[in-house]
Amino acid sequence: MKQDIKNIVEYSNNKRSKFFGLFIQFLIILSVITFSLETLPNLSAENRQLLNAIEIFCVIVFSIEYILRIYVAERKFKFIFSFFGLIDLFAILPFYLSFGIDLRSLRLLRLLRLFRLLKLVRYNRAMLQFTKAMLMSKEQIILFMGVTLILIYFSAVGIYYFENEAQPEHFSSIFDSLWWAIITLTTVGYGDVYPITIGGRMFTFFILLIGLGIVAIPTGIISSSLTKVVEEEPENSFKK
Amino acid sequence: MKQDIKNIVEYSNNKRSKFFGLFIQFLIILSVITFSLETLPNLSAENRQLLNAIEIFCVIVFSIEYILRIYVAERKFKFIFSFFGLIDLFAILPFYLSFGIDLRSLRLLRLLRLFRLLKLVRYNRAMLQFTKAMLMSKEQIILFMGVTLILIYFSAVGIYYFENEAQPEHFSSIFDSLWWAIITLTTVGYGDVYPITIGGRMFTFFILLIGLGIVAIPTGIISSSLTKVVEEEPENSFKK
Amino acid sequence: MKQDIKNIVEYSNNKRSKFFGLFIQFLIILSVITFSLETLPNLSAENRQLLNAIEIFCVIVFSIEYILRIYVAERKFKFIFSFFGLIDLFAILPFYLSFGIDLRSLRLLRLLRLFRLLKLVRYNRAMLQFTKAMLMSKEQIILFMGVTLILIYFSAVGIYYFENEAQPEHFSSIFDSLWWAIITLTTVGYGDVYPITIGGRMFTFFILLIGLGIVAIPTGIISSSLTKVVEEEPENSFKK
Amino acid sequence: MKQDIKNIVEYSNNKRSKFFGLFIQFLIILSVITFSLETLPNLSAENRQLLNAIEIFCVIVFSIEYILRIYVAERKFKFIFSFFGLIDLFAILPFYLSFGIDLRSLRLLRLLRLFRLLKLVRYNRAMLQFTKAMLMSKEQIILFMGVTLILIYFSAVGIYYFENEAQPEHFSSIFDSLWWAIITLTTVGYGDVYPITIGGRMFTFFILLIGLGIVAIPTGIISSSLTKVVEEEPENSFKK
Repeated sequence: MKQDIKNIVEYSNNKRSKFFGLFIQFLIILSVITFSLETLPNLSAENRQLLNAIEIFCVIVFSIEYILRIYVAERKFKFIFSFFGLIDLFAILPFYLSFGIDLRSLRLLRLLRLFRLLKLVRYNRAMLQFTKAMLMSKEQIILFMGVTLILIYFSAVGIYYFENEAQPEHFSSIFDSLWWAIITLTTVGYGDVYPITIGGRMFTFFILLIGLGIVAIPTGIISSSLTKVVEEEPENSFKK
Repeated sequence: MKQDIKNIVEYSNNKRSKFFGLFIQFLIILSVITFSLETLPNLSAENRQLLNAIEIFCVIVFSIEYILRIYVAERKFKFIFSFFGLIDLFAILPFYLSFGIDLRSLRLLRLLRLFRLLKLVRYNRAMLQFTKAMLMSKEQIILFMGVTLILIYFSAVGIYYFENEAQPEHFSSIFDSLWWAIITLTTVGYGDVYPITIGGRMFTFFILLIGLGIVAIPTGIISSSLTKVVEEEPENSFKK
Repeated sequence: MKQDIKNIVEYSNNKRSKFFGLFIQFLIILSVITFSLETLPNLSAENRQLLNAIEIFCVIVFSIEYILRIYVAERKFKFIFSFFGLIDLFAILPFYLSFGIDLRSLRLLRLLRLFRLLKLVRYNRAMLQFTKAMLMSKEQIILFMGVTLILIYFSAVGIYYFENEAQPEHFSSIFDSLWWAIITLTTVGYGDVYPITIGGRMFTFFILLIGLGIVAIPTGIISSSLTKVVEEEPENSFKK
Repeated sequence: MKQDIKNIVEYSNNKRSKFFGLFIQFLIILSVITFSLETLPNLSAENRQLLNAIEIFCVIVFSIEYILRIYVAERKFKFIFSFFGLIDLFAILPFYLSFGIDLRSLRLLRLLRLFRLLKLVRYNRAMLQFTKAMLMSKEQIILFMGVTLILIYFSAVGIYYFENEAQPEHFSSIFDSLWWAIITLTTVGYGDVYPITIGGRMFTFFILLIGLGIVAIPTGIISSSLTKVVEEEPENSFKK
């Protein structure tokens, strides 16, 4: 019987295991939607009760799943402290913790419920490929992230010296200028802060011509690593 | 004679078929322009009549084309329920449906007229290549679209906790925050909602550095699939 | 002597020809700066006279260059009606045309002076490579430009139906919506028009996830063509 | 003993050298944070004194490092006028210069302290790879930077003629229009200036469809050069 449960709970190729996986995934999505709906400002007491009921149901199922996973694991302590074991625990912990605690700290505990979303990783091959690609070129990503950060910092210092006098409310310190630098160099450009002096505009012109190529490098590294990871995998691993 | 019509109506390499194809394409474009002009708010009665006349003419030609296509098809039912058969039907159906119906629902029926634009696909090799490229890496696109959606959701939850108190009108719930997340991570950055707290800005900083690489992945997959599809096709298929 | 002039005027590898080329390039840049400065709103009469003097000097040199080029050309008519021959003519024509004409149409004639910038093409290897890359994948660029335009049109129609009632001043017709569609799908996002209804925002969400990959395709085609063109050229062609 | 200091100061593989390197890097980061904090507008006298103390400590360590580097260098003059020698000098010079000078010019001297950030280059392999990649395709980057600048200028002139009359405050001259052109073609789109006339919007539509591909070319060249540089390096150079 233990083998039976193991075949269902742990990801394998039989029908019951797939149904179980889909059911858990459905509950994760449901739980996430519930979590989102609870943040709506004008929620009636009835709806709030319904959302609570769904939440309790999800936690019960997740708890049973967690216990079963421990039950079927060969080396129980290894599972409990493994990456997925901890995620499964964190997905239900906030609910049990919130019983004996006053309401103030509830808000932050609710946030922990989002760990459930990480449970999806177990079922999402893309997420595993992505993690593999990140690890493959970890050092390069860190190194060029460093270059990007230096560029952003230089841009912030530059614009601070050009715009501080003209717009002391938007460029009051280098920390404020850093906000401008990240929003500009990623080309988001909200338009809440922008240079108005001629010097500041020419500096922006220059930084944009130089900088876009640099900011795009980490993106390029991730993409090319990912392509390698995907190509290395056997073709049929994407067929069901 | 049936063979003659078939040679003209179905895409082949003789001159009359090409002329027919260009004529239908011209009518599709004309029909789309008519459709756009009808939405102009201050249209005189005369112009409206003219647009109506063009619309009727287009529908008549498309109807004749549809009947001829059924006439020349070997297996008529297969054509009628094929992708292009249904598009040809939907391109004329809204016009005939709008006769017996009151004016309210007309608005939505008008929208169905846009199916005509899909008729262009029949004549557009690029569209076919693009469809082929999408199908080729369908599973990967879906998987990474999932990763992108999870990232967008995490960003929305994060910014909600940072900005909800400071700007309850813009970040009133996670659903509102999702709007911010998609507009920021695609670097559109309208500037209608943006973080103002230090925590929210640092979170945006972090999310942008991490997220741009992830959001760009589905785009990269489509591009590289397309390159493969284009290269596989014989060179001369682009010559006319 | 004709051979001597030919060696100087036409691009060749001797020193005098290179000096001549640099001198003409300098005059083109000078002429463009003059052109820009003339648009400054509060220009003193003195400065305006100075700019005029520079302009006359440039036109005289360009005229001499044009006459010399005709003089040294083997087949004079072929040169006059060649691409570069016409550009050389258009670079000086506006000046001579503006003598006998009243002031109103001057504005448009001034614009023609910008043809001078195209003279730079003659000296710019990158521009030639770029033109070659464009011609190489001309058909594909046109085809996918078509797909991009269809996507932009669909987006415009969709947002029109969602936002027209809520914001009739910004989305008054499909033509206004087209402005929104191009600014959003290129991720410029000025923030002058953006959806405010839930339907419109969800539509934008959907269109951005799908659309960014498509809009990026023509860019990708140009880039990969260019890489091929650059690689095909002998390495030493970039050394001077 | 000189050899001992040399082994520590110059980048080598023993433990003491690595610790020394990390210590200097830490001081650079500390110095940069101090520099940023000093720009905060409402700083108490106490905090200002603390920041000054840290700054003096950093300068002393950097000065000792500089003297040691000269001491261990084989050819002292060559080191002093080398790239890294000058950076090490400029990193401490502003501090010593600011003693005998009145407070006004201090602001600019403070800016020179940022040269310290360049000291990080010595320890950052990514920065060296990036510099190598830039040098490798220097000529191409300059050539296509030229094409990009011509495109930006054309866009600025075009929008000037369309929008100058409608918005004389935003598009008062071609120089103002250049600001619009760079912000639009890099897709930053702050939203401080945007076209409002139909002609200007159609021109923007056209320029964006054509221009995004061109502006992306220098970025593409840097990325592909970098990929080559990274691949050429022996794999183990990234392992420690």
